[in-house]
Amino acid sequence: MSKVTSHISISVDGFVAGPNQSSENPLGEGGERLHEWVVATEGWRAQHGKEGGERGADSEVAEEVTRNIGAQIMGRNMFGPPGGGPWDESWRGWWGEDPPFHVPVYVLTHHPRESVEMQGGTTYHFVTEGIESALDQAKAAAGGKDVLIAGGANAIQQYLAAGLLDELYLHIAPVVLGGGERLLENVGDPTLEPVEVVASPAATHVRYRVGARL
Amino acid sequence: MSKVTSHISISVDGFVAGPNQSSENPLGEGGERLHEWVVATEGWRAQHGKEGGERGADSEVAEEVTRNIGAQIMGRNMFGPPGGGPWDESWRGWWGEDPPFHVPVYVLTHHPRESVEMQGGTTYHFVTEGIESALDQAKAAAGGKDVLIAGGANAIQQYLAAGLLDELYLHIAPVVLGGGERLLENVGDPTLEPVEVVASPAATHVRYRVGARL
Repeated sequence: MSKVTSHISISVDGFVAGPNQSSENPLGEGGERLHEWVVATEGWRAQHGKEGGERGADSEVAEEVTRNIGAQIMGRNMFGPPGGGPWDESWRGWWGEDPPFHVPVYVLTHHPRESVEMQGGTTYHFVTEGIESALDQAKAAAGGKDVLIAGGANAIQQYLAAGLLDELYLHIAPVVLGGGERLLENVGDPTLEPVEVVASPAATHVRYRVGARL
Repeated sequence: MSKVTSHISISVDGFVAGPNQSSENPLGEGGERLHEWVVATEGWRAQHGKEGGERGADSEVAEEVTRNIGAQIMGRNMFGPPGGGPWDESWRGWWGEDPPFHVPVYVLTHHPRESVEMQGGTTYHFVTEGIESALDQAKAAAGGKDVLIAGGANAIQQYLAAGLLDELYLHIAPVVLGGGERLLENVGDPTLEPVEVVASPAATHVRYRVGARL
């Protein structure tokens, strides 16, 4: 059964980026600590063309979240460039000519742009008709596989608030950021049901099924 | 080895009470949902003189957190009455003449008061000399057992910020409150290490060892 899923690293105090985000420091102060659990893994490193890394529960999670994804949706801020606005067509994302997605990626934007085909199976499509249209297109492209809401926080919030998210997988890093960008703001009162927990010294991974709205 | 420990129920978005707390609604709007996991358990019900309840992982957690506690510390707001200020000596806490603590309880307050001996081993002591003095007294009284910082959030924050807490056990309820009282505010940047995770459909219990300050 195809589902709409999302996963994101979050601090114990609920932040997905630290304070004072900027184009030089897009994760905010201390925000890189949220991702230490994953960048150390063999699974993540292999996806990004790097050798080595740790095997274990965290690596299995890093691999598992990329399985069975047929299309992705991301917000304009995640795709970049910083600042937004009309497209500079020389901008082809943060991830180089062979991005680690390998599926169609639908970018939510207010500014139309022709699709951009990258190497390795990634094609960027730019959707100006809103989140539901992007989801319809992504589902059609996913061929029965899952659709990943890749981020950032604002895109996940919009799908969660609209009742369009089936699953939210949180990677709770053992970090207190004290400020920054919150994930669960302006999302109403979703019904969450923890259906899987994977624990490691580096993070606590809790998969929530998102149910009917209260 | 005696330790200073605390445990508290918290929403996925980091709140330990809902918005608009009042004397009629001390947990705030929706705050009672944070505690559904525990009030359903046989372990909690037995501690509160009630029969029945569910057995299982949550009940084991409810029982485990009361084991090996030799003394407790709580903030004035938790002890009550609402509003604070100089003591009305007719106030003997929220928990009746036979409170569920069964150990000495040190209440942090700005207003001196004679100790009050209750039934079942609970004696309330009122400490005006600050959190370190309360901890020294509680450790001496605990006879080698652990000292529990019982709450509320502000008392836990103070001990965490002062580097005096050895362990923080969070019961993460699958609830989004959207506002209210945050636990991890004004606590600086403690080093947290998840050392135990207990998962159930009703809550994800993560025990953090609190390490040296960064």
